[in-house]
Amino acid sequence: MNSRPASVSARTVDEYRDSIEQLLRPLAARPVESVSVPAALGRKLAADIRSPIDLPVFRNSAMDGYAVRADDVAVAPVTLPLAGVVAAGQPGQGPLPAGAALKVMTGAPIPPGADCVVPVEDTRRDGSAVTIERGRGAGEFVREPGTDVRAGALLVPAGVALTPRHIAALAAVGVPAVPVFQPVRAAVVTTGDELVPAGRPLRSGQIYDSNGIALAAALAANGAAVVSVEHSTDDPAVFRRLLSAATRSADLVFTSGGVSKGDFEVVKDVLAAQGGLFGSVAVQPGGPQGLTVLDGVPVLSFPGNPVSTMVSFEVFARPMLRHLSGLPPVRTSEVPLRAAVRSPAGRRQFLRGRLTDDGVEPVAGAGSHLIAGMAWADVLIDIPAETTELAAGAPVRVREL
Amino acid sequence: MNSRPASVSARTVDEYRDSIEQLLRPLAARPVESVSVPAALGRKLAADIRSPIDLPVFRNSAMDGYAVRADDVAVAPVTLPLAGVVAAGQPGQGPLPAGAALKVMTGAPIPPGADCVVPVEDTRRDGSAVTIERGRGAGEFVREPGTDVRAGALLVPAGVALTPRHIAALAAVGVPAVPVFQPVRAAVVTTGDELVPAGRPLRSGQIYDSNGIALAAALAANGAAVVSVEHSTDDPAVFRRLLSAATRSADLVFTSGGVSKGDFEVVKDVLAAQGGLFGSVAVQPGGPQGLTVLDGVPVLSFPGNPVSTMVSFEVFARPMLRHLSGLPPVRTSEVPLRAAVRSPAGRRQFLRGRLTDDGVEPVAGAGSHLIAGMAWADVLIDIPAETTELAAGAPVRVREL
Repeated sequence: MNSRPASVSARTVDEYRDSIEQLLRPLAARPVESVSVPAALGRKLAADIRSPIDLPVFRNSAMDGYAVRADDVAVAPVTLPLAGVVAAGQPGQGPLPAGAALKVMTGAPIPPGADCVVPVEDTRRDGSAVTIERGRGAGEFVREPGTDVRAGALLVPAGVALTPRHIAALAAVGVPAVPVFQPVRAAVVTTGDELVPAGRPLRSGQIYDSNGIALAAALAANGAAVVSVEHSTDDPAVFRRLLSAATRSADLVFTSGGVSKGDFEVVKDVLAAQGGLFGSVAVQPGGPQGLTVLDGVPVLSFPGNPVSTMVSFEVFARPMLRHLSGLPPVRTSEVPLRAAVRSPAGRRQFLRGRLTDDGVEPVAGAGSHLIAGMAWADVLIDIPAETTELAAGAPVRVREL
Repeated sequence: MNSRPASVSARTVDEYRDSIEQLLRPLAARPVESVSVPAALGRKLAADIRSPIDLPVFRNSAMDGYAVRADDVAVAPVTLPLAGVVAAGQPGQGPLPAGAALKVMTGAPIPPGADCVVPVEDTRRDGSAVTIERGRGAGEFVREPGTDVRAGALLVPAGVALTPRHIAALAAVGVPAVPVFQPVRAAVVTTGDELVPAGRPLRSGQIYDSNGIALAAALAANGAAVVSVEHSTDDPAVFRRLLSAATRSADLVFTSGGVSKGDFEVVKDVLAAQGGLFGSVAVQPGGPQGLTVLDGVPVLSFPGNPVSTMVSFEVFARPMLRHLSGLPPVRTSEVPLRAAVRSPAGRRQFLRGRLTDDGVEPVAGAGSHLIAGMAWADVLIDIPAETTELAAGAPVRVREL
């Protein structure tokens, strides 16, 4: 974690995102802990898990019916003496006598000698005998050992975040616990003298502090453990103190605000002095950005407008964070635009959009302050830097929020 | 919750799922609690939330720059005296004197009189004067109050599970807490004398108990609160006792096993005597199914094969559970099949499949015991009941796991 961003001149979205991802890549090597399988849902698996057993463990019946020799039922109907009844969970029997039938429940062991199961629907029981109405070939309705998975075969590969289907497979082969990575620990420090906590009345010039709450939610939704969310005034001493606490407890720190061209830019002023790289990425919203390694911890500095903060997170941090958490990549697709849009030259623009049955419609203007519109969006519409206008019907790339 | 399933003869997948959904619909009326916005991520909103304020609250600057009268900068370059500096968070000023400029940071209030902002990039400062290199029209870079959202306008509609973008919007308008529904409380009772907990060696005829762990994970991943997971032997008294505890603590109970045509079917034997409906749905895997209302609580009885249990959950329970939890519907799409498949006549079949760049490939056979294969699947391939074979390249409907 001692590497520095490769270049101060990273200016396109892709270049800047690559700088961030290079800085964050070492976070893949996080501590590993053992967690019981039922508690491991959503955790990132730290090692390949191979099946400790064959599954099925033993030859068993795929149906409720009668285990027989296929040769004995080749000509049907035929009546066979009943050799017994085996439920699932009962120990295996001795060999099936020639010319006999054993009643077996689904999942019950098939005795040696038997090579098929006749489903109960195709039989007629009469006391201690059963009449087989329709014969079956060798192997029918018999589950052979190891046909689901062989002992030693790869069951779940390292690196995935465990879903219910992985949990089901691990439980089925009797794995009690798995090694998983500790989640990425993230801290958030928002800045701005104008910010007020929810529930208090606003005075002139003030706005509510939403970036801390929003970033914490976005981090949690993408696999990170949020260790702290703090708000700093624009006093550099306060900011330095909160930042220092953040880098001590987290693997990754996010700041919001204080990065643009104003006279009072606490984040830029403090972090540029510590070797941080600040500049303007060719993107809207979210142009002013900063990247610092402080006490070995990457610090990503986003602009303070709420939409700029959220778009910065989506574009620059979320893809890598999902990778670090073992989650599937952000989905993108190409769909028709439902309304014409304009876009400034030289900046890649991310508009909020809502998917419809026949495309995507922009849900708010391009303004970086339109956070309410974001509540109605389910995608970002990705307008290339060189594009200045797009007609309705034009194909656009969208990324799911 | 006193309604009974409409019909015992529900036999197609759609009919049976409809019966279940009718039974579960009253669970939408769950108790409501107030939760702080930061803690409400993923919870289902119980009421429409309207914005308590205009956003922006006040006219403010979209850029770091100079607030001026557009008329004063109509002919550029022009040098204006500086009337002061306003950072974001500072209270609004008195009116801007005619022919003057006020330095404003992004988000800072625009004084009365000023009607546009000239970005700092287009200016040159010289002590107490600023030269405007390029004029701007009235309204440029000025954010008017209420242009994001008006006080009283709908911000987030009732019924959605709150995502980070909803949390961001709620925080931005200063809403401190929201009414959310308590999650659906679910209990699981697995049955089968052959089941052994993970970590113990298997004896002859035994298998590991995976359905409880798998159902609990699937329930949690779809918004339910899992209140208990118990395993019952095939002893009816034990099953009755565990079931009774489950219906006392949960809104919805799932059982696995004991529903097919064997001689020892504890779930069917106990619940059919309580008015439960048991029968065979035309589906594979997962044919034998049961539906009971016990002490006013819906009890869904799935077959015991691990894949049958998981497919039953996916097909019969998950869509309604996601609706009850405010989560988006299960995604389905139509894609080409990468390999030919066969399917039994008269039964709708759900094969495990894996999406590739150019379609979907089946990842395991049709056997209901192939749970390890499920770990590699990301969709179910939905083969209609009347279809018996499909060639490679045929379009099939898939539903995402």
